[in-house]
Amino acid sequence: MNALLLVAHGSRRQQSNDEVVVLADKLRKNCTEQYNIVHAAFLELAETLIPDGIKKCIDDGAESVIVLPYFLNSGRHVVEDIPNIVNDTKKNYPDVEIKIAPHLGASDLMMELLITSANSTK
Amino acid sequence: MNALLLVAHGSRRQQSNDEVVVLADKLRKNCTEQYNIVHAAFLELAETLIPDGIKKCIDDGAESVIVLPYFLNSGRHVVEDIPNIVNDTKKNYPDVEIKIAPHLGASDLMMELLITSANSTK
Repeated sequence: MNALLLVAHGSRRQQSNDEVVVLADKLRKNCTEQYNIVHAAFLELAETLIPDGIKKCIDDGAESVIVLPYFLNSGRHVVEDIPNIVNDTKKNYPDVEIKIAPHLGASDLMMELLITSANSTK
Repeated sequence: MNALLLVAHGSRRQQSNDEVVVLADKLRKNCTEQYNIVHAAFLELAETLIPDGIKKCIDDGAESVIVLPYFLNSGRHVVEDIPNIVNDTKKNYPDVEIKIAPHLGASDLMMELLITSANSTK
């Protein structure tokens, strides 16, 4: 069983956190062939935090977990904070493969998304 | 002449700001048919700030400027801060059409980008 854990920063604005949870729900429906389990987690300021998000995936039966940073830039959170938390959490689950995906800004599709967003301006 | 102003948050980490400028350069090469002018600007912590970014576009001859928020969630920055700054700046340029594009998380392409990023994990 493969799991995807969408990790956002977390905001004091609950609506912003809810958007991430809704996005994870949408993701779950769109990638069932590749990922049987999809959850959302947050670096800070909101529940579920990353270690609990990883635990949720494993409790659901995940043998592999991909942590997908919902971040645009390779700032400190992407380069240091998320890897540190994931590496610490990994120690508790030696039999589970836990990897971190590239941040979204690194994707070739970003260009297309930017132009589409610009063109959709009303 | 149409301009696109890519607006990111701005980081204390210079490399993160440089990534945004590189992305704007890449964007410029990819959308020359629709947008003759492309610049990057930041909400805070980095140069160029939004009002100066808009000025740069207009100095380059823009008759319309689309401000494209390089943000994933509809947090306070997207909902309040960027619109407030853009609306204040607009007053200086009554003859230029200045609009704000939706934030990136609102795009239908985001789902595809997330799954592609997850699948590219090494």
